[in-house]
Amino acid sequence: MSNTKIEIFDTTLRDGEQVPGCKLDTKQKVIIAEQLDISGVDIIEAGFPVSSPGDFKSVEAIAKKVKNATVCGLTRAVENDIKIAAEALKHAKKPRIHTGIGTSDSHIKFKFNSNREQIIKRVFQAVSYAKKFVEDVEFYAEDAGRTDNHYLARVCETAIKAGATVLNIPDTTGYCLPSEYGAKIKYLMEHVKGIEKAILSCHCHNDLGLATANSIQGVINGARQIECTINGIGERAGNTALEEVVMVLKQHQGLNLETNINAEMLYGLSQLVSESMGIYTQPNKAIVGANAFAHSSGIHQDGVIKNRETYEIINPEDIGLKGSQIVLTARSGRAALAYRAKNIGYELTKLQLDTIYARFLTFADERKEINDSDIHQIIEASSIYQQIISA
Amino acid sequence: MSNTKIEIFDTTLRDGEQVPGCKLDTKQKVIIAEQLDISGVDIIEAGFPVSSPGDFKSVEAIAKKVKNATVCGLTRAVENDIKIAAEALKHAKKPRIHTGIGTSDSHIKFKFNSNREQIIKRVFQAVSYAKKFVEDVEFYAEDAGRTDNHYLARVCETAIKAGATVLNIPDTTGYCLPSEYGAKIKYLMEHVKGIEKAILSCHCHNDLGLATANSIQGVINGARQIECTINGIGERAGNTALEEVVMVLKQHQGLNLETNINAEMLYGLSQLVSESMGIYTQPNKAIVGANAFAHSSGIHQDGVIKNRETYEIINPEDIGLKGSQIVLTARSGRAALAYRAKNIGYELTKLQLDTIYARFLTFADERKEINDSDIHQIIEASSIYQQIISA
Repeated sequence: MSNTKIEIFDTTLRDGEQVPGCKLDTKQKVIIAEQLDISGVDIIEAGFPVSSPGDFKSVEAIAKKVKNATVCGLTRAVENDIKIAAEALKHAKKPRIHTGIGTSDSHIKFKFNSNREQIIKRVFQAVSYAKKFVEDVEFYAEDAGRTDNHYLARVCETAIKAGATVLNIPDTTGYCLPSEYGAKIKYLMEHVKGIEKAILSCHCHNDLGLATANSIQGVINGARQIECTINGIGERAGNTALEEVVMVLKQHQGLNLETNINAEMLYGLSQLVSESMGIYTQPNKAIVGANAFAHSSGIHQDGVIKNRETYEIINPEDIGLKGSQIVLTARSGRAALAYRAKNIGYELTKLQLDTIYARFLTFADERKEINDSDIHQIIEASSIYQQIISA
Repeated sequence: MSNTKIEIFDTTLRDGEQVPGCKLDTKQKVIIAEQLDISGVDIIEAGFPVSSPGDFKSVEAIAKKVKNATVCGLTRAVENDIKIAAEALKHAKKPRIHTGIGTSDSHIKFKFNSNREQIIKRVFQAVSYAKKFVEDVEFYAEDAGRTDNHYLARVCETAIKAGATVLNIPDTTGYCLPSEYGAKIKYLMEHVKGIEKAILSCHCHNDLGLATANSIQGVINGARQIECTINGIGERAGNTALEEVVMVLKQHQGLNLETNINAEMLYGLSQLVSESMGIYTQPNKAIVGANAFAHSSGIHQDGVIKNRETYEIINPEDIGLKGSQIVLTARSGRAALAYRAKNIGYELTKLQLDTIYARFLTFADERKEINDSDIHQIIEASSIYQQIISA
């Protein structure tokens, strides 16, 4: 069975940039967009052109620079937004306008002071208007996660009739369980008339820590695009992390789903975005955190030294890292100490190791981490130092 | 239908502390354990007593101090480990020994150079030996995520026969999809003879960003305990985050599952662990990140100002925070500017707001974030300042 392609829609520069205090300038955005393009991202959402003159300029610059990916600009379901987005995108090789409106009862009532029928009209108008400028129009049904499925299907049908090529089903508040989000996508695949003319897109937020699982459950149930950001950055708890969904699909070949991303660029992309935005990625961040491949406990280290796959499912080199680390702490075992000692030139016998290990534990209990010079010191200060070096 | 209780097993001080470079001393561990106890954690895994003299001392000190929670110590399936753990736990009001062994073919072959039948014998011996010291014995089948279900069921039956009260099913490498992990728990619930004498426990790692989803899928399918850490800390990409599973169950009342955790302590616990271990939590960390409740885009801010539930599913006060923040950046809209201006004393008319907003955007395009003194400056420098303050 051949694999089905899942489009990767990166919104680091739009939804990702909605992080308080982390604005990027046009130059920084263009550098990131170029790297995303090289990595194989299918669609780059470059910004929200109407929102500020600076954002318009960034979208325009990215549209000129990107070679392969589709370049996308966000709009509300408002003619002026759409006209300005089209203007910003006019130099793009493959332009896409991303327009939409809130469809949950909460959004319809509190945000728009409107009703369901009026919203349906606005959906048709916005998509039709966007089609005057570009062929590729994506429609988002904001807060789809809390929108009644029957009404949501009508919204999708309306957008398709107006010419939408992609239907974005955002879990805007990050509320859905994977089973619920998957069921929503399945419902739409089965009930939206004309669904074969468009693809469904997953846009999940991480408020409950479920964004990756929800996106994966979405594509398992028929969605063909995932919207995500590098390092999972974004407003509040952020968006689905690009590196996580790419690696889940890569590791789970049985799903028969694949992306176009060159995974070896993931670590570099993570570092680039982290440094440009000044947002530190926590050490235990999945895939790209500083410790994602670091082992410190004795049991784990012993296993990894015997066979990497005992504890690691991903080869660090696959995401562009040089190798897993064996970190020495008071939780480390003899095997780790012997491994690290060997790396700096000491071949210890079993008996020697026992003696040195006891000293190592006392030493390590007082420190966070033991480095190579500490190992030298522990061995040199031991009564068996002469015996070790003369061996 | 009354809710089913899910036990929260916190392993911040054991699996969580296996973070390279983040060793805690006994005093710090006791402080964290006391807070976990007050928050309603059911089981505190305090350490791995045989691993070092310092860890033994910490487990002993925590066992003496904790008032309500069960205090647990980790061991391998080795008599000396178990004896020493029992010794460290002897002052605990409710002691639990957590023993186990690798059960996947990869672990059996590469880690133990053994075979399935020998491992079954070691399971029985280890649990039986632990039962000589304590009533409450938890067994872990390490790398259960990659263990054949049929063999895993035999391992579980053996542990139950030897007296295990809890069966821990770890996804040690963080490899499982939620559907797979849920199916594994379901299989065990349906196929393990004597399963009514014990409960199943979820112990998931976050290597692919799926730990929270896997744990939730586990309890949906019949598991009754979740093993987790504050901030999701731990080796590699860490463990399931306690704050995430607690809030998923709290937000999804329809699952009819509940924990004993006082959610209002979550933010404080996160800060305590982060500061004690020197591990920064990224701003977009779900539930406890600095930005988890911060809104910066215009569309979102406008929605939140009209009605908090438009974009927020969790009330920040529920986890111990004072309130959501409206952060001003170049992505913010008029409503957010008016809201923040009002907070510092300026009541702007619609026309005044238009004038000030244009100045604000130019200003904001050059800055990451606009603070109160910037707002004063923007308004004071405008041609309509006199008009505003004399209103």
